[in-house]
Amino acid sequence: MPYIIVEDHLPGITGLLEYRKDSAGPIRELTEVLLRGPSTLTTGERELIAVLVSHRNECRFCTQAHTAVADLLLGDCETSEKIKKDISTAPVSDKMKALFILAAQVQAGGRNVSHESVLKAKEAGATDLEIHDTVLIAALFCLYNRYVDGLSTVTPTDPAFYQSLAERISKGYLRLPQGYDHLQ
Amino acid sequence: MPYIIVEDHLPGITGLLEYRKDSAGPIRELTEVLLRGPSTLTTGERELIAVLVSHRNECRFCTQAHTAVADLLLGDCETSEKIKKDISTAPVSDKMKALFILAAQVQAGGRNVSHESVLKAKEAGATDLEIHDTVLIAALFCLYNRYVDGLSTVTPTDPAFYQSLAERISKGYLRLPQGYDHLQ
Repeated sequence: MPYIIVEDHLPGITGLLEYRKDSAGPIRELTEVLLRGPSTLTTGERELIAVLVSHRNECRFCTQAHTAVADLLLGDCETSEKIKKDISTAPVSDKMKALFILAAQVQAGGRNVSHESVLKAKEAGATDLEIHDTVLIAALFCLYNRYVDGLSTVTPTDPAFYQSLAERISKGYLRLPQGYDHLQ
Repeated sequence: MPYIIVEDHLPGITGLLEYRKDSAGPIRELTEVLLRGPSTLTTGERELIAVLVSHRNECRFCTQAHTAVADLLLGDCETSEKIKKDISTAPVSDKMKALFILAAQVQAGGRNVSHESVLKAKEAGATDLEIHDTVLIAALFCLYNRYVDGLSTVTPTDPAFYQSLAERISKGYLRLPQGYDHLQ
């Protein structure tokens, strides 16, 4: 049961974003800019950063939600599973592997990001902006995961919930027009 | 030296907020809403959450910056020092002590926030909204600390830098009009 009273039919982050809309606005906007805005990283690659960080923070709601989104955007379920289990075996480029390692270091703490790992990412072709965005997306999911679990929100067990959420999120993080609120 | 090229004269978070302005906008706005917007917690109390979390994340830039802001807003330097060393000895109410303990648990990870600690905060008079905001402010500084240290930004050693930054931040987190950018 959540630690604060949120709407019963809105589990995980969805109830929190309704609970305080003036903080929800900029959170949605930041996520939209970073995960859906123009980027040299695909939306699927960016969602995999969310999967990796949420998994390592043991946030079951966010892990399941972003796994469903990443799988939908990538068109396969294997990549997200491998990212969670062992980055080195994932079917992604060396650049993405190096960026996922940076994201994992950010999850453990900002001071854990090593000069050596950044150099490796740059050698594999990562730009400054890609490194910046990887760090900030990883940091953003450290916020989300703590928000969702720190208030003990409900984690649905039905995979259909995450499938439906993924279809919505794959299109963007901004608020839906009124009348579609049940999908958030 | 920062891992990405930011403006030389803008240390810590200040260079990052200039580096990518479309992500900086919602970050500033979220911070303004949570730390300066209407609340039953004072601005000084909310800055102390930032101090506590940044200190525990060992983010020297954010700890020094928000300590200077908290000291300025509270009119003393003792409270912030005690919050960092031992919450139980800080000259704050039992409600605030209970909320600081929640913030410390959020810093360690969302799943660390215990039902018992939330009950204690409620028994000491904390409202749902105060608990929500404490968790979200703590989570936000987990983002900031990772952003600042994950990109290895510069931490000034001159206390005058933090004093000047604190005077600016005590008035708000939104962007200053052009021409005042050197203060950010």
